[in-house]
Amino acid sequence: MVRILTKQNVAQLLNMQDAIKYVEEAYKQLTLGNALVPQRIAITDPAPGLTLVMPGIIGGEMNALATKIVSVYKKNPEKYNMPTVLAKIMVQDINTGDIVGIMDGSLITAMRTGAATGVSVKYLARKNSKVLGIYSAGVQARKQVSGVYWGLNGNLEKCIVYDLNKASAEEFRKELQKELGIEIQIAKSGNELLKSVDIIVAATTSIVPLFSGDDIEPGVHISSIGAHAPEARELDSKTIQKANLLTAGLKEACLAEAGDYIIPINEGLIKKDDIISIGEIITGKKQGRISDQDITIFKSVGISAQDVAVAKLVYDRATLEEIGQDIAF
Amino acid sequence: MVRILTKQNVAQLLNMQDAIKYVEEAYKQLTLGNALVPQRIAITDPAPGLTLVMPGIIGGEMNALATKIVSVYKKNPEKYNMPTVLAKIMVQDINTGDIVGIMDGSLITAMRTGAATGVSVKYLARKNSKVLGIYSAGVQARKQVSGVYWGLNGNLEKCIVYDLNKASAEEFRKELQKELGIEIQIAKSGNELLKSVDIIVAATTSIVPLFSGDDIEPGVHISSIGAHAPEARELDSKTIQKANLLTAGLKEACLAEAGDYIIPINEGLIKKDDIISIGEIITGKKQGRISDQDITIFKSVGISAQDVAVAKLVYDRATLEEIGQDIAF
Repeated sequence: MVRILTKQNVAQLLNMQDAIKYVEEAYKQLTLGNALVPQRIAITDPAPGLTLVMPGIIGGEMNALATKIVSVYKKNPEKYNMPTVLAKIMVQDINTGDIVGIMDGSLITAMRTGAATGVSVKYLARKNSKVLGIYSAGVQARKQVSGVYWGLNGNLEKCIVYDLNKASAEEFRKELQKELGIEIQIAKSGNELLKSVDIIVAATTSIVPLFSGDDIEPGVHISSIGAHAPEARELDSKTIQKANLLTAGLKEACLAEAGDYIIPINEGLIKKDDIISIGEIITGKKQGRISDQDITIFKSVGISAQDVAVAKLVYDRATLEEIGQDIAF
Repeated sequence: MVRILTKQNVAQLLNMQDAIKYVEEAYKQLTLGNALVPQRIAITDPAPGLTLVMPGIIGGEMNALATKIVSVYKKNPEKYNMPTVLAKIMVQDINTGDIVGIMDGSLITAMRTGAATGVSVKYLARKNSKVLGIYSAGVQARKQVSGVYWGLNGNLEKCIVYDLNKASAEEFRKELQKELGIEIQIAKSGNELLKSVDIIVAATTSIVPLFSGDDIEPGVHISSIGAHAPEARELDSKTIQKANLLTAGLKEACLAEAGDYIIPINEGLIKKDDIISIGEIITGKKQGRISDQDITIFKSVGISAQDVAVAKLVYDRATLEEIGQDIAF
């Protein structure tokens, strides 16, 4: 039997607090060598869009094996009235190899990305952080705020959002104020957002830096989850240079895909060894923030282990709560 | 909506004649550069078995995009009373990226492998071929006979089978005699099978040669679909040396995985350039069999394009005949 979980089922089963726990465990198992993230397969021509096939496995107590198939077709909204990004995740029983669950993957993708920031906030932000500044009011950004909120154990008080699209920012304000009960303020400029914030999240589609490192304050924690190509970045070299701690969801993935780190490395401003996987901090192998003045950076490009962990969480809970539809193949 | 197709649905929708047409088209599009077979991803530790993730895309008129997830867990039968090999195939709409069909992949795997041999027989065996000798009476072997039968347009008259397991050979005889209406003879020894046959098929789990090249007759066509590791082979170096034509399902795949070719290349007996993809013969770029005395060889290690093509065939027919179950995700 294969359990089929729709987007609605997934929404019903998944919350950010649990997603943070599972993504944290995934990062931990990666550092302990109990998880494997193979190089994902990208398929384009002769298709008019991109498909990424992302399998992964996590051992330890999680024992999760799954593959996400995600497609990015930019003309879908216009041509077919369909979303640009579509995703499904196939969960296997690690003991038999059998596919036991198939679920919608779009909400999981947004949640696991928010959860990655949540893990970074939990380990790297100042304990007394209260104010978040976020670039973008898009779908990903909403789950980022939720990730920060729960990464701070619900102690986030205010979020300042900046988006070129004013209507989108206003909608974001209404929705998140209701969802999290925190104050949401709309910034008039990107730079306004940098003043008196404890945490900065960059969740844009920009391929050039969003602000200058000259303008960031001591003590801030920055999470960048947009830009994932060697020549693209959300953070400038000055920001990277000024930071006291450079972390990654997975160091190897960031060294392959994140211009935020690759460009300053190529410029000779930092060394590869300056970057550490957050799993090394979670497992206590490396030290995190040392002082309240430290600037800490987390860069995540999205790896299959995050999807695998959260998909396993959703599947296990669906089985427990008897949610979804069982199909005999 | 996603169309779910069970093993029974697939069996109802798929026949060998169509599978041969679609696999032939896949080989053709590969040679024309309209298809892509990315390196498959293999996942093992910390799982107690192997998972292969095999995406592929075929353009041209077929326009097929799909991923097979196949697992090989040797302890499944004993520990869980489940098959060793389990497979499912996810079919995407090439125009939107959306997963529109999910189907059982075990029968498709056997059929596409039989169809590969069928394509090779169609293009390389002597036109007057009547007698097949086959090593193994296993599941794969049955579909091989079907592939040869339809590759010869139903003109196969007799099949001589050799298997160490006598009961299995007897069952094979009864089943295939009924299915194809041809004479099935059980050989007492492996070598007995080599006499007076027009076509030889090797479909075993052996990793060492099944016979000596000294014992094969002029004019024979050989298809080897077992052994798919650089150090494993079903055919010995003498067989390869004696052959007039060395073909592969996909040359690059065989040069990476097929000991049948890799070992004699390493021994300096043949060169890489002596091997051609069968697509080059299908498209008329290279010549096939020249005389009735030629010994022709086809080696196939199984590539995703075969699965993708046959899965597309099954999906399209299911849509047309309204078979399967539509699930909203």
